[in-house]
Amino acid sequence: MTHFFDRIPKIRYEGPDCTSDYAYRHYDPDAVVLGKRLEDQLRFAVAWWHSFAWPGGDPFGGATFERPWFGDTMAHAKLKADAAFEMFDLLGVPFFCFHDADVRPEGASFAESVRNLEEIVDYIGQKMAGQRTRLLWGTANLFSHRRFMAGAATNPDPNVFAYAAATVKSCMDATHRLGGENYVLWGGREGYETLLNTDLTREAEQAGRFLQMVVDYKHKIGFKGTILVEPKPQEPSKHQYDYDVATVYGFLKRFGLEGEVKVNIEQGHAILAGHSFEHEIALAASLGLFGSIDMNRNDYQSGWDTDQFPDSVPEMARAYYEILRADGFTTGGTNFDAKLRRQSLDPEDLILAHVGAMDVCARAFKAAAALYEDGALEAARAARYAGWNDPANRTMLQGATLEEISDRVLRDGIDPKPRSGRQERLENLWNRFV
Amino acid sequence: MTHFFDRIPKIRYEGPDCTSDYAYRHYDPDAVVLGKRLEDQLRFAVAWWHSFAWPGGDPFGGATFERPWFGDTMAHAKLKADAAFEMFDLLGVPFFCFHDADVRPEGASFAESVRNLEEIVDYIGQKMAGQRTRLLWGTANLFSHRRFMAGAATNPDPNVFAYAAATVKSCMDATHRLGGENYVLWGGREGYETLLNTDLTREAEQAGRFLQMVVDYKHKIGFKGTILVEPKPQEPSKHQYDYDVATVYGFLKRFGLEGEVKVNIEQGHAILAGHSFEHEIALAASLGLFGSIDMNRNDYQSGWDTDQFPDSVPEMARAYYEILRADGFTTGGTNFDAKLRRQSLDPEDLILAHVGAMDVCARAFKAAAALYEDGALEAARAARYAGWNDPANRTMLQGATLEEISDRVLRDGIDPKPRSGRQERLENLWNRFV
Amino acid sequence: MTHFFDRIPKIRYEGPDCTSDYAYRHYDPDAVVLGKRLEDQLRFAVAWWHSFAWPGGDPFGGATFERPWFGDTMAHAKLKADAAFEMFDLLGVPFFCFHDADVRPEGASFAESVRNLEEIVDYIGQKMAGQRTRLLWGTANLFSHRRFMAGAATNPDPNVFAYAAATVKSCMDATHRLGGENYVLWGGREGYETLLNTDLTREAEQAGRFLQMVVDYKHKIGFKGTILVEPKPQEPSKHQYDYDVATVYGFLKRFGLEGEVKVNIEQGHAILAGHSFEHEIALAASLGLFGSIDMNRNDYQSGWDTDQFPDSVPEMARAYYEILRADGFTTGGTNFDAKLRRQSLDPEDLILAHVGAMDVCARAFKAAAALYEDGALEAARAARYAGWNDPANRTMLQGATLEEISDRVLRDGIDPKPRSGRQERLENLWNRFV
Amino acid sequence: MTHFFDRIPKIRYEGPDCTSDYAYRHYDPDAVVLGKRLEDQLRFAVAWWHSFAWPGGDPFGGATFERPWFGDTMAHAKLKADAAFEMFDLLGVPFFCFHDADVRPEGASFAESVRNLEEIVDYIGQKMAGQRTRLLWGTANLFSHRRFMAGAATNPDPNVFAYAAATVKSCMDATHRLGGENYVLWGGREGYETLLNTDLTREAEQAGRFLQMVVDYKHKIGFKGTILVEPKPQEPSKHQYDYDVATVYGFLKRFGLEGEVKVNIEQGHAILAGHSFEHEIALAASLGLFGSIDMNRNDYQSGWDTDQFPDSVPEMARAYYEILRADGFTTGGTNFDAKLRRQSLDPEDLILAHVGAMDVCARAFKAAAALYEDGALEAARAARYAGWNDPANRTMLQGATLEEISDRVLRDGIDPKPRSGRQERLENLWNRFV
Repeated sequence: MTHFFDRIPKIRYEGPDCTSDYAYRHYDPDAVVLGKRLEDQLRFAVAWWHSFAWPGGDPFGGATFERPWFGDTMAHAKLKADAAFEMFDLLGVPFFCFHDADVRPEGASFAESVRNLEEIVDYIGQKMAGQRTRLLWGTANLFSHRRFMAGAATNPDPNVFAYAAATVKSCMDATHRLGGENYVLWGGREGYETLLNTDLTREAEQAGRFLQMVVDYKHKIGFKGTILVEPKPQEPSKHQYDYDVATVYGFLKRFGLEGEVKVNIEQGHAILAGHSFEHEIALAASLGLFGSIDMNRNDYQSGWDTDQFPDSVPEMARAYYEILRADGFTTGGTNFDAKLRRQSLDPEDLILAHVGAMDVCARAFKAAAALYEDGALEAARAARYAGWNDPANRTMLQGATLEEISDRVLRDGIDPKPRSGRQERLENLWNRFV
Repeated sequence: MTHFFDRIPKIRYEGPDCTSDYAYRHYDPDAVVLGKRLEDQLRFAVAWWHSFAWPGGDPFGGATFERPWFGDTMAHAKLKADAAFEMFDLLGVPFFCFHDADVRPEGASFAESVRNLEEIVDYIGQKMAGQRTRLLWGTANLFSHRRFMAGAATNPDPNVFAYAAATVKSCMDATHRLGGENYVLWGGREGYETLLNTDLTREAEQAGRFLQMVVDYKHKIGFKGTILVEPKPQEPSKHQYDYDVATVYGFLKRFGLEGEVKVNIEQGHAILAGHSFEHEIALAASLGLFGSIDMNRNDYQSGWDTDQFPDSVPEMARAYYEILRADGFTTGGTNFDAKLRRQSLDPEDLILAHVGAMDVCARAFKAAAALYEDGALEAARAARYAGWNDPANRTMLQGATLEEISDRVLRDGIDPKPRSGRQERLENLWNRFV
Repeated sequence: MTHFFDRIPKIRYEGPDCTSDYAYRHYDPDAVVLGKRLEDQLRFAVAWWHSFAWPGGDPFGGATFERPWFGDTMAHAKLKADAAFEMFDLLGVPFFCFHDADVRPEGASFAESVRNLEEIVDYIGQKMAGQRTRLLWGTANLFSHRRFMAGAATNPDPNVFAYAAATVKSCMDATHRLGGENYVLWGGREGYETLLNTDLTREAEQAGRFLQMVVDYKHKIGFKGTILVEPKPQEPSKHQYDYDVATVYGFLKRFGLEGEVKVNIEQGHAILAGHSFEHEIALAASLGLFGSIDMNRNDYQSGWDTDQFPDSVPEMARAYYEILRADGFTTGGTNFDAKLRRQSLDPEDLILAHVGAMDVCARAFKAAAALYEDGALEAARAARYAGWNDPANRTMLQGATLEEISDRVLRDGIDPKPRSGRQERLENLWNRFV
Repeated sequence: MTHFFDRIPKIRYEGPDCTSDYAYRHYDPDAVVLGKRLEDQLRFAVAWWHSFAWPGGDPFGGATFERPWFGDTMAHAKLKADAAFEMFDLLGVPFFCFHDADVRPEGASFAESVRNLEEIVDYIGQKMAGQRTRLLWGTANLFSHRRFMAGAATNPDPNVFAYAAATVKSCMDATHRLGGENYVLWGGREGYETLLNTDLTREAEQAGRFLQMVVDYKHKIGFKGTILVEPKPQEPSKHQYDYDVATVYGFLKRFGLEGEVKVNIEQGHAILAGHSFEHEIALAASLGLFGSIDMNRNDYQSGWDTDQFPDSVPEMARAYYEILRADGFTTGGTNFDAKLRRQSLDPEDLILAHVGAMDVCARAFKAAAALYEDGALEAARAARYAGWNDPANRTMLQGATLEEISDRVLRDGIDPKPRSGRQERLENLWNRFV
């Protein structure tokens, strides 16, 4: 026992009228919604980095958090893991996620880093054996250490490429061993600071090759989870190659990997790319790429990744509605890639941030599910395109030529009349449920 | 003669020290730069819509310009063409671009609109016969009329799809007849206002089919020009499908059209998508899609397309440098998709805006060419990746596996050391030329 | 009767479970919240311009709406007024707002414009006599006509200043005659397109003088309403002088008008200035300037004023909470400065947009009121500053010097320890009510 | 000697055709421009924090720089000062700037921190005695340490207010002792993370009181320099109180300090606030507040403070042109608040970044000066307002009433006609010089 959370009770569902801080008012893991337990629909995960490794710094100030497990030894790493599993238990979350750098101290050599990782993976594995929290995904941190400052897979230095490849192998091994359901790649330094020193063509080829090796290795070791790429347009780089879902799609098509890799979509990253979160989810679903989500909230008015715990039911309902239209999660889930505000120093803050976020997600999911089940929105959507059910119109999508269509327009005097898009009406419908 | 430009002399190159408003100080069309006449390198085009059709309105105010050719008759359309060719002659520009809606009045029916277009195309053709200005590209305006409010190719109403297809046919015919070197599609309404009423999958299929028909028709009529798609992320739509170059690439790959279609990149659109203009050019070149540019300048701090005449030599030099790295224009060119500020009421303003823009482009191009010819920047770029020339490193891009690479990292104790990216040094080098 | 709304029933409160489109589910005007009828708390107003005068155009397309009252005659103006009052009656809204240009056709001369205004004001006055809808505020449109393209009060041409002054007089007269509760000035063209041709000092003096005259005239005619300035940072201008609440405060202080003028805060304008709506309201309240609100919603990801009908309960609750902290509206109210999406063509759309918006506001207001009444948030806020209640600490705000404080820090070894800001906890509290 | 810069020669002016990296091509300190030596016009300063204290971290990665002086001892601090003065000498810069936290290690107590500061100030003072570089300004770092996480002057905890006050006193003492020409306050944490826990009214009063004490102390100790506030809208805080120049003006007026305090304007901060740099300078000049500039460049497309070394001549020329219109610097100067890109690891990078920046500034200043001297732009500006020279028009600014003006408009049939704003023409004029 770390005693870190000593004053905090186990969080349980106590219904919407409960006024305690330490209760779920909306998240009842066992409630059945659209045919599944809510826990199995939402598949919540805690992110090791923000919740246990981040010290509260920002570009203008240093650490604000003081955690007993901060330090560079294996003992610290184990204490951190102890605290993590205590929190998982208090919250009753079914999943967690981690980077190698979150869970083990960096070694003096690559070999030592791998040994450290293996040791802590054993330790985490033992803890998992005694508890029900599982691994949603693992990933390699290929962006914090200075060796990665100019990229990992896309580094101009082949030694960095090699180091990154070896690191990913070790993290895939760790993920596989812990029964992870996905493996994620976020290319925070796969991009550039200035075009002046960058060869876009080479770097894309390096990235394509790298991802192919990851896919090959997955099959080699029999990892059944999903490989997920996480798009982000910029920050820390001036430009990142995995800009958004559409860009990742083009990249996967280019290297023939669109059947092998899906996307992990983060709200903050979607917003930085100029998209709504629900757009990115809907697009990924439409392209057959939807995998998982990083649920946070981004301040629309701060031009960087604010990674706040979500607090807006309507915003999240939009996201979950699109996830429901995509038939829900399979291997993916709702990972809170969210960090406390740096003034939120106390153990209570860490717990309450997750409690609030889970509750808001649950409330949003239930609202989205009710609307989806109602069917009125989908019916309105389908009705808008009903004209295409006419065979004469379908022909246009199946081999007609510009000339044939032009002849028809001239012959029939086609003069289309606009029809209302009914946006406000649909927004009202939305608000009946959310 | 329209007398509109009566007080304005023909603009000629008079050298950098000339102080007259009515002279080129940097644009000498006959100067040879990197083996070609500057005119043939830059391939300037005037945009009919902004220069002759736009009345100076904005979302908060109506027309400010009063042009003798404003009106809805064929006589007005011809007067407008007269003025246009007078301006082309005064400026000595080699190209122009147009939409159908810029050059002809809308008819009471589609058939009448097509007849109007054909008549004015004849008229323009006659004017071209007597002058040296040629057509860079034509395009269809599928966004201004209310029938297109919910899209053209991606409209839920198949009649609009048909109308759009017939319209594009008529514009391709017109472009072909006038010897256009490219045909452009800008999908300003191909997107959505709200996801709530939108079926992304259907709309993408409609768009893919539409573009396939355009390509087929091009081959059918023997049009030798390039089909260009012009990306833009949003405005007027909340979200536009041809978001940016990377998105268009994915779209073309999806429908197997990446060998048939290239892109027309506009600075303002690049900026709205969160990219630098030079990024979009470099990426298009890297993907084999670079076609042409719409040269304007966008206010980085106004979140809409300001379409200003370019005035920054360094900004444009970045763009032309990437164009030179892509071996320059083939069928493409530098189209001024730029509009006067709405307070710039006078004929002189229209002329001087183009004179200034052409001069700034010429100055930027010459600077970029000098740097490119110098070779120092390209040498620095190549040196940064020199490690990949080592065969042991190339292997990693040609079939090695994660395990093999991991073994090598462990065996050789690979521990890459960061090397300076030298950005400021390269920026200084840049500023020696620009 | 215009027959425009023929198919639409009168909207009544029918409770949260009602599923009809044509009912209020949350807005019960007679429900008493925090001691007042909800109607008197929210003070809803319909905006004449967006709802009756805007044709649905955007920078890339023309009118989409077809209204029987579109046209430039007094007959059209009266038909428009008839429709407006029919809608006010259907909705049961207590207020409306207008610009001169919304309600009367522009005359061939200023004198004719004024006569037109007077005639329609008579007409509107008669309609008001038979109905309960009152005037929240009137204003002058000093931005749409080309004469104002370079500003009104801040125009370089003194004749425009004069024309603007005369126009404002006529609009203040009209507002006074109709019993308006406020008079608003929005300076959409009071700003610049380029600093190169602008004299900031002169233009500020012109603006200060102009506002002084408005205040003087108010007193002269005995108008008891509030003079409101409406901040906006840009659009249509590159830069607008009334950038945000803080800027307006500085301007008022500069010209000694801070006791005479308050602000009308629009959500979309706040967002364009980089602020949250609730920030602007809270700041105005703190500075003694809070007057009224323009309630719309702005797309955070479109860099222009999208003026959408509000649809987010949490967003609006933040605004109303700050209004409650400022003791609610006095002469101000909730004006829907919101326009239909341009695809929302039907009379139903116009009605339902207002119904939805009013309902969302009502729901938000009730949630904010419950939280405010609960007191927990205000108690937490006060507790955070409780250290200042200590007299030794208050001294520092009442005449201590740096040296005295420094001595005390040294003597007492003051070494302050950070305390949690408890942000997530407060967000959870918020979500218990909203 | 630190040997850090061993391979780097002293930088001298060698003219525009010199191709060496280690030379000024445009910055000739002794060249006389507009009656003063260029050195005295530009008044360049190096910023201690970025150039010597910043380790190259960003929100996603740690230190990349390895400097022999990184460490927490006085010996490290002195080594850092040695390196700094070596660089000042190599560059020949006339000024530097510092925060307390840049130059001394934090002590175990406030008293020790002050002693450390005093000791290093002695050391720096000795170095200054042997060299010609002077202090442009000093400042207190009231944002990096966790004690300031919720603000300094505006902290809810009065002990932090006290600690901040004592710290500022010590920094003003240090600045005074080193002959500083200004003292700066940047309130990076004077703002809020969430309105939910914030009392805007109290915090403003704390801030006003704090600044009053600073002004009082300045007079008390006979410091003749200027007190400068540095505006920034956000980052690190969600909202910062010194948002922009207009906001600071309002704040100063509110507390009666507008005659005592001026502003230090940073390009990056201006851009984050939605303004052009030249706007902020011009506005400050117009309000009598212009003091000094932090010259960097901000990426318009990264929503945070990128603090890059300037590289755009046209952008800087706009700034210097406005400074010339404001009669140039008095106590202020051009401080490079710019940091190397984190991949720019080498000593050469640090030198070349400054060399390039100084050269670009010099080139920009000379261009701006030539245009200013030419007078054509100022003549065009004055001509635009010439109508106000008419006494009948001036009357409107001197006591006329709305009614009198309205009568005149009606009587004279005033009907103003728009006149061209000539923006493109002025931009062309600009480009003749820049």
